[in-house]
Amino acid sequence: MPELFTVVPPDEALKRLFSHIRPGVGTQNVKVNLALGRITAEDTFAPADLPAFSRSTMDGYAVKAADTYGASEAIPAYLKVVGEIPMGKPAGLTLRRGQVAKVHTGGMLAEGADAVVMVENTQVVDETTIEVVRPVAPGENVLHVGDDVKKGHLLLSARHLLRPQDIGGLMGLGITEIAVSSRPRVAILSTGDELVPPDGEVTPGKVRDINTYSLSALTLQAGAIPLSFGLVGDSYDELREAAVRGMEQADMLVISAGSSVSTRDLTAQVISSLGKPGVLVHGVSIRPGKPTILASVEGKPAIGLPGNPVSALVIFDLFVVPTIYRLAGCTTPPLRPSVEARLTHNLASVTGREDYVPVKLETNPEGLLAVPIFGESNLISTMMRADGMARVPLDKGGLSAGETVTVRLF
Amino acid sequence: MPELFTVVPPDEALKRLFSHIRPGVGTQNVKVNLALGRITAEDTFAPADLPAFSRSTMDGYAVKAADTYGASEAIPAYLKVVGEIPMGKPAGLTLRRGQVAKVHTGGMLAEGADAVVMVENTQVVDETTIEVVRPVAPGENVLHVGDDVKKGHLLLSARHLLRPQDIGGLMGLGITEIAVSSRPRVAILSTGDELVPPDGEVTPGKVRDINTYSLSALTLQAGAIPLSFGLVGDSYDELREAAVRGMEQADMLVISAGSSVSTRDLTAQVISSLGKPGVLVHGVSIRPGKPTILASVEGKPAIGLPGNPVSALVIFDLFVVPTIYRLAGCTTPPLRPSVEARLTHNLASVTGREDYVPVKLETNPEGLLAVPIFGESNLISTMMRADGMARVPLDKGGLSAGETVTVRLF
Repeated sequence: MPELFTVVPPDEALKRLFSHIRPGVGTQNVKVNLALGRITAEDTFAPADLPAFSRSTMDGYAVKAADTYGASEAIPAYLKVVGEIPMGKPAGLTLRRGQVAKVHTGGMLAEGADAVVMVENTQVVDETTIEVVRPVAPGENVLHVGDDVKKGHLLLSARHLLRPQDIGGLMGLGITEIAVSSRPRVAILSTGDELVPPDGEVTPGKVRDINTYSLSALTLQAGAIPLSFGLVGDSYDELREAAVRGMEQADMLVISAGSSVSTRDLTAQVISSLGKPGVLVHGVSIRPGKPTILASVEGKPAIGLPGNPVSALVIFDLFVVPTIYRLAGCTTPPLRPSVEARLTHNLASVTGREDYVPVKLETNPEGLLAVPIFGESNLISTMMRADGMARVPLDKGGLSAGETVTVRLF
Repeated sequence: MPELFTVVPPDEALKRLFSHIRPGVGTQNVKVNLALGRITAEDTFAPADLPAFSRSTMDGYAVKAADTYGASEAIPAYLKVVGEIPMGKPAGLTLRRGQVAKVHTGGMLAEGADAVVMVENTQVVDETTIEVVRPVAPGENVLHVGDDVKKGHLLLSARHLLRPQDIGGLMGLGITEIAVSSRPRVAILSTGDELVPPDGEVTPGKVRDINTYSLSALTLQAGAIPLSFGLVGDSYDELREAAVRGMEQADMLVISAGSSVSTRDLTAQVISSLGKPGVLVHGVSIRPGKPTILASVEGKPAIGLPGNPVSALVIFDLFVVPTIYRLAGCTTPPLRPSVEARLTHNLASVTGREDYVPVKLETNPEGLLAVPIFGESNLISTMMRADGMARVPLDKGGLSAGETVTVRLF
C-alpha cells in the first residue's frame, strides 16, 4: 500500500513538462503606459533616431573644437559669445571661427559647433567674451543624432518582459502602443470534500479553502489571470467535469488535490483522462511537495499540486510560475528575490532531495541569519511567520549550522 | 560657477528624510482576495482555532496509542476496524480499547482516539482486522485544535506587507476583509522646456518625455498611485504652481528636473518655497544621481530627481520607493531582486561614492558574469539593454575584474 513514485529531480521535471507544452496564448495591443510586466510579442525597431538632433550633455559653451586647441590656465583661448541657445528650440545660430554659444545640458548644438566646453573650464571676461582654459576634442560633451538609439535598429526583442526603463524608452521614441502576449489564464481547482469557502460555516470535519486564494495571488504576481472554479468534491465525475471546463476556458489547469493518497490518485486519473500525452511526471524529489503531478494535455499544461497549503505554494512557485511565463513566450522569467544567510541550526535532508524550510531572517553584526522555524513546518501559520524558504540543494544530505544558505523570499 | 554640493551618503540622506516625514496615508477596508501587496493597517487576531477539530496528518488508522505499545514486525498488535471516517464530516465514531477507524489525511479524529498509525505501518488481515507493526505515541500524526493558529492569538501584525500565504491564511480563518493603508499617491512632475509628450511632434530642439512613464511604472511597482501633472516648463511660476497642486493632491511630490544647473536650482527654489523645513539634502554621494534633492514640506516628502532618465530611475529606486513604503506604514519594504556575479572588467569609482553601472548578465560554467555596458552609461537605451545595475560600494575606490559584485536587477 505505500506509494511508489518514480521521483524526478526538479530541473528534469520542468524540462520534461516544457518539452511537451505549446507556448503561445495569443497577442493583444496595449498602451505602453499600461504594459509594465507584459511580454513583448514581436521585435520592436526604432522608428526614429534618438536624439533627433545633436545635444549638449553639459552646461557650457558650444564651440568649434579647433578653437580650443592648446588652451590652458596659463594661455587661455579668448572666444566670442554670439548668443545663448534656448532649450526646446532650434539653436538658430551658426558659429564662425572664434565664436561660441552658451548652451544648457540637453540643448541643441549650434550650427558649425562640434563640441561643448564645460562651464567649469571657462571664465567670463565680459558680456561677449570668455576664456577657455582646457581644450576639447571634436564630439566632446555632445550626444550626436542616433547616439542613444539609431533609426531602424532593434529596440526591444520579442519575448521580453517590459520593465520601467522599457516603458520609458518606448515612450521616448513615440511608441505608445505595443503588441504583447495575452495574460495566460490559469484554472485553479481546489478539491476536497472537507473544504468550505472562507465565508462558509465550519461544521465539524470541515476546513476553509486556503489554496484557491494563495495560489490565485501567486498567479496574479506572475502576470496571469486566475480563474476560480470553486470547490470540487472528491469524486471522479465531479473533478473530471470541472477539469474539462478548466481546460476549455484556460491556458493551464492547476488542481490542488486533497492530501490523501486516494484523492491524489483521483487527480492523476482525471488528468490522464483529459488527453494525450497526459501525466509526464508523478513525484518530484522535493520536500515539501513530493506527490506533484506534471502533465500535458494536447500541449496545454496540467499540474496537480499537493493539498497541503505550504506544499502547494512551494510547488506552484517552482513549477507553475515558470510555466506561466513560458506560455506567455518569456524564456527568462524574473528571479524570485533571494538572499544568502547564515544558518543558525542544522537542517537535515537526504542527498537527492531538494528541501525548502521556512525561516525567519535576523540581522546581526556579522550579517544575515536564517533561523529555521521548526515544529510543524507545513502549516500556513508557519509560512505567514516566515520571511522565506531556505533551500537545501539536491546534492546535499543536509546543511550545518554556520553554513550559508539561499533563502527564497516569499 | 561650479556647483558646490555638500553631498550626503545615501543611508544618511534617507535617514534624514525619514526623520522629517509623517507616515500615514489613511486606511481603507479591502477584500482579502484583492489585498496582495497591500500593507496591513492594524493587528489581526485569529477569530477561531485552526484547525477547529483534531485532524489526521496521514493516511492510516485512528487509534488509542496505548493499544500499539510494544507492537513490532515480529509481534504485531491486532486491532479491530470499526469504521472509516468520512472526509468533511464528523467522525461519528467512538473507539473503545482495541478498536481503530480508517482515516484519511485531513480527516477528523474519532472520539477516544489519540493518535494515527500510518497505513505503511499496518497490514490488512481481513475486513475488520489489521496488524499494527510499529507503536505510536499519543498525539503522533495528529494536528490538534489550534495547533496551526490559536483563537485570539496575533495572526498578522500591523505594517505587514500581504503576501500570497497571508492571503491564504486569512481566508483560511474566515477573514475576508481587512484594513490596509491606502495606496500612497505620488505626484510626478516632468519639467523642461524641451519636453513634448510621447505622441507629440518632435520639432528641432524638442525631445519626448521619458521620465513621467518610467517613474510612473516604478510607482505602480511599489504599490502606489502615480498622478501625472503633465509637462512643466522651466519657469519658477509654472513649476511652483504645478508643485503646489501636486502637494495638495498627492502624498508625495517628485520633480524630475531638467539636467542643467539652472533648472536644478529652480527645483530647489520651488521646493524651498512650499513650506517647512524644506530642503534637507541637496546632493548625494551616488553616481549617477548626485544632484538629488530630498525635502520635507510640513511632513510630506518632496524629492527632486536629476532629469537624465537613467539617473532618475536609479534615484527613484533608491529613495522614492522606500519612501512610498514608509508612507504606507511599512518599515521593511520588499528587497529589489539582486544577484552576485563576477565582474568581467574593472569598474573605476572613487572612495566615498556609490556607483551604479549598467551590466548584462551572462552565465558561464563558473557561474554568473556581470559585463559592464560601457560607452554612454546614462542613455535610456543602455538601461534597456542592461539586466541590472552593478553596485560599487561607498567604501571602494572601484572594483577589479574578477571581483564579486552585487547586481540589482532592474
